[in-house]
Amino acid sequence: MIRTHEAGTLRKEHAGQKVTLAGWVARRRDHGGVVFIDLRDASGSAQVVFREEDHAHDLRAEYCVKVTGEVRLRPAGNENPDLPTGEIEVVASEVEVLSESAPLPFPIEGGSGVSEEARLKYRYLDIRRQKIADALRIRSQATYLANEVMRERGFVYVETPHLTRSTPEGARDFLVPVRLQPGNWYALPQSPQLFKQLLMVSGLERYYQLARCFRDEDLRADRQPEFTQIDIEMSFVDQDDVIELGEALIGRIWKETIGYELPTPLPRMTYAEAMARYGSDKPDLRFGVELTDLTDYFSGTSFRVFQAPYVGAVVMPGGASQTRRELDAWQEWAKSRGARGLAYVLVQEDGTLGGPVAKNLSETELGGLAEATGAKPGDAIFFAAGAPAASRDLLGAARLEIGRRCDLIDESQWSFLWIVDAPMFEEDGEGGWTPVHHPFTSPKPEWADNFQDNPGEALAYAYDMVCNGMEIGGGSIRIHRAEMQQRVFDVLGISKEEAESKFGWLLEAFKYGPPPHGGIAYGWDRVCMLLAGGESIRDVIAFPKTASGYDPLSGAPTPISPEQRKEAGVDATPKADKPEPAQ
Amino acid sequence: MIRTHEAGTLRKEHAGQKVTLAGWVARRRDHGGVVFIDLRDASGSAQVVFREEDHAHDLRAEYCVKVTGEVRLRPAGNENPDLPTGEIEVVASEVEVLSESAPLPFPIEGGSGVSEEARLKYRYLDIRRQKIADALRIRSQATYLANEVMRERGFVYVETPHLTRSTPEGARDFLVPVRLQPGNWYALPQSPQLFKQLLMVSGLERYYQLARCFRDEDLRADRQPEFTQIDIEMSFVDQDDVIELGEALIGRIWKETIGYELPTPLPRMTYAEAMARYGSDKPDLRFGVELTDLTDYFSGTSFRVFQAPYVGAVVMPGGASQTRRELDAWQEWAKSRGARGLAYVLVQEDGTLGGPVAKNLSETELGGLAEATGAKPGDAIFFAAGAPAASRDLLGAARLEIGRRCDLIDESQWSFLWIVDAPMFEEDGEGGWTPVHHPFTSPKPEWADNFQDNPGEALAYAYDMVCNGMEIGGGSIRIHRAEMQQRVFDVLGISKEEAESKFGWLLEAFKYGPPPHGGIAYGWDRVCMLLAGGESIRDVIAFPKTASGYDPLSGAPTPISPEQRKEAGVDATPKADKPEPAQ
Repeated sequence: MIRTHEAGTLRKEHAGQKVTLAGWVARRRDHGGVVFIDLRDASGSAQVVFREEDHAHDLRAEYCVKVTGEVRLRPAGNENPDLPTGEIEVVASEVEVLSESAPLPFPIEGGSGVSEEARLKYRYLDIRRQKIADALRIRSQATYLANEVMRERGFVYVETPHLTRSTPEGARDFLVPVRLQPGNWYALPQSPQLFKQLLMVSGLERYYQLARCFRDEDLRADRQPEFTQIDIEMSFVDQDDVIELGEALIGRIWKETIGYELPTPLPRMTYAEAMARYGSDKPDLRFGVELTDLTDYFSGTSFRVFQAPYVGAVVMPGGASQTRRELDAWQEWAKSRGARGLAYVLVQEDGTLGGPVAKNLSETELGGLAEATGAKPGDAIFFAAGAPAASRDLLGAARLEIGRRCDLIDESQWSFLWIVDAPMFEEDGEGGWTPVHHPFTSPKPEWADNFQDNPGEALAYAYDMVCNGMEIGGGSIRIHRAEMQQRVFDVLGISKEEAESKFGWLLEAFKYGPPPHGGIAYGWDRVCMLLAGGESIRDVIAFPKTASGYDPLSGAPTPISPEQRKEAGVDATPKADKPEPAQ
Repeated sequence: MIRTHEAGTLRKEHAGQKVTLAGWVARRRDHGGVVFIDLRDASGSAQVVFREEDHAHDLRAEYCVKVTGEVRLRPAGNENPDLPTGEIEVVASEVEVLSESAPLPFPIEGGSGVSEEARLKYRYLDIRRQKIADALRIRSQATYLANEVMRERGFVYVETPHLTRSTPEGARDFLVPVRLQPGNWYALPQSPQLFKQLLMVSGLERYYQLARCFRDEDLRADRQPEFTQIDIEMSFVDQDDVIELGEALIGRIWKETIGYELPTPLPRMTYAEAMARYGSDKPDLRFGVELTDLTDYFSGTSFRVFQAPYVGAVVMPGGASQTRRELDAWQEWAKSRGARGLAYVLVQEDGTLGGPVAKNLSETELGGLAEATGAKPGDAIFFAAGAPAASRDLLGAARLEIGRRCDLIDESQWSFLWIVDAPMFEEDGEGGWTPVHHPFTSPKPEWADNFQDNPGEALAYAYDMVCNGMEIGGGSIRIHRAEMQQRVFDVLGISKEEAESKFGWLLEAFKYGPPPHGGIAYGWDRVCMLLAGGESIRDVIAFPKTASGYDPLSGAPTPISPEQRKEAGVDATPKADKPEPAQ
């Protein structure tokens, strides 16, 4: 090492010692011939004093320097109690510029107004900022902790392939042309799902991987074309075993990184309850404001809009005092989510009900409404009526919006829970069924024999871990019996040929004594974002891309040359004598 | 868990307990109404006894079963001391078939003659074999240990992107079309080299990653299009720091997985010495048989073939007794390596020298040859003459072949060493220079100012770790000064424009106070292969591909449909208004 000490580790005990530091010029102050420099390295920073200005005259911001000097106590009154090294300073006797820095595109300290494009283009400077560096460090710490937990529990860390065959999941595969087999393409995996199930057929019993996944999804906020999963699969287990492991894993990480003790066992809520009470399968329980089901209440209503299969409401505390403009904004908000609007009733301070909907309701309906919804004088009641799923979804979103606007969410709190008993299938809008999780998800034991008779009611043996209103992990017990898998394919309308061509290699494996198995995957970027207190997964990714998949740093993606194109075999016709896939 | 115990953990202390096991039917023996089954799970196996045959009558090989029964001591004389569970057996009272198995394509136990194609196609059955499962487990163990060492030493685990921009290394990039930016392509990284250097510019100081890398190389033995590196980079270090870390890492792994104590510090040998003595930059020191430099010895020779810039020899113990056919085979062997042949002299038991070359040599030359080469009566002396590099390479290969044919290699031994002081450049055969490592490799301090004056002599600040004749890790101290980097580009004939277009984004970063830094990367597949005693890296990869990149299990790669092709934007013309790369 070209230094003897790390700057951030110096304390008063070092006073009198000669030290050599290496790091960056973080801040410089000139005081009549004496120059003070904050020397920053990965451990923190220390104040360096240059008594003769000529030593320091060419040290500018972010120069990388090596400084030798003596540690001394700061003069009385000059201590900085906010800084771990605030009791000392280093009086420089030698300085060497290891490398200079051009003028910076943005300042490392402060400079909160820097555009994200600039930050990503100069990401290496962005990472010199404490907040970003800390986020990457907490991610690293969490990764080490995950390894520790899984190692203690005897999981086998297995790396699954990244160059593989297209798999039939929800999003599109990234494709890779294969030069040695012109006209043929690999796909990058959307998840290691099939491989981890094969590892269970292999008898490894406990599999774990920090797995990179790739999904060519459409533009949306906080999208990244590649992301990371903590990927886990276990044999001979049932739901409780996987849930216990998940709590141990997340519990250890939260405790050791940020000192929060997870209240295990975490509460479990059924999907049906979550939808009914919170209008969401990932409810944020850091605040109340639950949905009220008013379908029965309005069963005899003459108000056309409420003559619907579902009528529900959510109360906005203090919402009656909103201006006309604010109330209109709610309508726009609802329309932007695809709803026709958001009916509301205002509970005036004197208890009377106002707003355009009120005059459509009967005396009786008005009379019991506050009590039925729990609204108090001064509150607003928002309604949704129509198909249950869409209406609850709207109310659930309104609930979150209420939480934000009314500042009801205690950001210092953690809300963890499991959502269990999700439906196996949902309607695909074309008269058929689509899996809520994936087609290898097992029904709950009580639905094992008859899910096909009532696909809309059947419950999956699946579990999602929710934190602060975000799904951070999800998994299921898988199907391991061919005949049950066939019944699922039948419900989904997947023909034998289609199943064969899409996941024939998994089905083939399942002919050879597959064990009962299940697993879970944690969205690692999201977990780390929560730990780091970030607002975007980009905060915890060293080199993220923009929402369109562009990397301002490297300029990727780029056009390719005709030579590259030819060499990669992009336009070749595949040979017919290629070996057949394993079926 | 659907079982109470793991089969391989049962001991005589469990006698009398009722247990439930789950696993696979490994072997079945029927003895007059009593059926014995070896039940195998990940922990090992236990003998299960079915006293009534009807319980067991449908249990066939590799059925996955759950068995409940009582543990009892085996009857005296029936113990199996070779098996950890050999003192007990489980008397089954209940059995449940969890899943059946179709007839196997090959037996799980024994069956050494199975083709690799079949093994890879049914890899999930192959992994049920002890040897393969053990190899994957030792890899997992090594991975956990690597995490442990790097964590203890404060390294930040950072995941670098897999969808990135084409980098200019030795092999070809895999390309990925980008649907959201039609006509533009990502490249899969051949290594995280540029990103890890950027992380040093970022000030993280200590970076580590288990990194997947992709190289679209031509067919060769033991090639995989994707492979894994333990990737490490450190700031403010010199060569000794990286070497110390590498020894600590590999030392911990060898000790904790297979109980071998690395004799640290490992010996270091210069590249020049390795080439001179062993004809290799990755010498296998588990046996002697060194090269002899006879250039001076033959400086006055009249034998045309030996009138060469280099003449060297290697001795094959007992090689004089080879048959004509064996000696001819050496010629074929040399030709297959691109040499014209392999000149030899046979030292007869009476000390006289035979073979076709002998008659071309003078009395004096013959007289001192045995002594000069160290050959004893009964040995053969092989020669190479010509350009030093090619000749040493041939002799080095002959040395390894001699080691194998004469069974000189003690397979139980470990030979670790560092090769240091490699040349910075080698001739590219077209009058120019090419980097021996990569263009960011620093010269040794004593060559810092003048490597450009003598590119053929300049030494790199690089180090490779060699184990049993294989390079398992390699790294270097990097260049962090722009003017030095420019001088390297000048030697390599890389123009400013070319440098800008190829790695402009790294050069740009180096304008902002880059720290001195260096690192190392270990070829993880190879490390694990050595640990597992495998013969191919395929032995330690869960789902490997064939040498041509074909996956017999999934059938990847495959042709893509016209819809996929269109959607991926493979044939689109990139828009001109794409944001400019960061330069």
